[in-house]
Amino acid sequence: MRLSPRHPRYASLRVRGALARAQSAGLVVAEGLIAHGRGEAFDYLLGERTSASARRAERAAAVWLHAARRPVISVNGNVAALAAREIARVVRADPHIRVEVNLFHRTLARARRVARALESAGVAPVLGVRPTARIAGLPSDRARVDRDGIYAADLCLIPLEDGDRAEALRARGQKVISIDLNPLSRTSRVADLPIVDELRRALTHIAEDLERVRSPPAGGIRDRFDARGARAEALRTIGRTLTREARRRSPRGRT
Amino acid sequence: MRLSPRHPRYASLRVRGALARAQSAGLVVAEGLIAHGRGEAFDYLLGERTSASARRAERAAAVWLHAARRPVISVNGNVAALAAREIARVVRADPHIRVEVNLFHRTLARARRVARALESAGVAPVLGVRPTARIAGLPSDRARVDRDGIYAADLCLIPLEDGDRAEALRARGQKVISIDLNPLSRTSRVADLPIVDELRRALTHIAEDLERVRSPPAGGIRDRFDARGARAEALRTIGRTLTREARRRSPRGRT
Repeated sequence: MRLSPRHPRYASLRVRGALARAQSAGLVVAEGLIAHGRGEAFDYLLGERTSASARRAERAAAVWLHAARRPVISVNGNVAALAAREIARVVRADPHIRVEVNLFHRTLARARRVARALESAGVAPVLGVRPTARIAGLPSDRARVDRDGIYAADLCLIPLEDGDRAEALRARGQKVISIDLNPLSRTSRVADLPIVDELRRALTHIAEDLERVRSPPAGGIRDRFDARGARAEALRTIGRTLTREARRRSPRGRT
Repeated sequence: MRLSPRHPRYASLRVRGALARAQSAGLVVAEGLIAHGRGEAFDYLLGERTSASARRAERAAAVWLHAARRPVISVNGNVAALAAREIARVVRADPHIRVEVNLFHRTLARARRVARALESAGVAPVLGVRPTARIAGLPSDRARVDRDGIYAADLCLIPLEDGDRAEALRARGQKVISIDLNPLSRTSRVADLPIVDELRRALTHIAEDLERVRSPPAGGIRDRFDARGARAEALRTIGRTLTREARRRSPRGRT
């Protein structure tokens, strides 16, 4: 069945198709598809657009990334499949940001595929294909990182990541920026700077902000971010969607 | 990595694993995994339990199924993978309910696999493997149904179905019971009787209710169901979850 651009869900159906193909190509795993569905539900409830609060978080993220001494973006299969180009744009805007493959379901073949997807989009170098260090607090393979990447980072941007990993980084004293559509997830709760927005919108905004920054890195992150306020604002946005939708009549005026 | 039964998300991780295996077995497609993720998000927001309102809907569904002249349950890949046993239990409790394979992404091989999963659980006969009729208002393959099943049904129970199909059945004057965790979905909006609950919980309750019914079929569905009220109640439940979660502090007391 061909997908018509006039379909009301065209954009999200296209993304679904891309992820399904990424799974066939060995980039994305089944759990990644299910996780994407959870994100879709929250994006729908958030009105499928960047809220003013999320936009503020994205601006703060650009400032933090710019000011950090060793900022790293952690990339898993879903992120590579959905937003390799946006990652590349962020790194072009600020080349001192490093990019590391970090997989929950790690195999060397999959790590290589994720790296290749990033390299094809223009990211180089890509760290983490052959991990050289371990971080505490995570079981087995999930602890494996790059000694010059996440291991040594003062700031990690972790899009679409799990709560265990977010907690393990925080426990090491590293600052964490999350991108996660679920404001209630452990990842969003743990992050110093939770961005509650769709991945590609968030990365595009961060890249735009970084492209505008002209001053040299400020030598470390000094300001704080009201993480709790940002999550509360996302919950209020969802609440407004529910109230509005509850008032809507059924299709064709049926009740 | 082995899954510990003490993991806080054990139940949902187990279901994810089962669906991933069902995809490898050709029963479930990539889009089905994404749809499952959307359901997970809504179930989480609904507190992962059957609300009093959903329970009332399930009781009404049992009455309707029992009273219908030609009730049919439509089964897709996800439903067969998740709840073949529960479908079998419903049909054992009321053998005049028929079961039909109905796939969005139809191939003969996949229809056969879905039928086999149902038959292994004890459902016989399974209609719809080789469709014998078409219903109006749906494109191409999705319109194909069984002349003695969905085509002739006065009542269709459509778990985890898309809005187009729900609308096409309604347009033919057939009564529709949906099982869908999203109270805002077109399926839930279109259904005469929307059950906003998790698939296996809903089917188990319907089976329990049918097992208690002793009178002969009442000769058609006479009562009406407050579909709009049921959806509004589900939205209020989600609203309560959001309010409660917004008050919770971050993990480890961080803000």
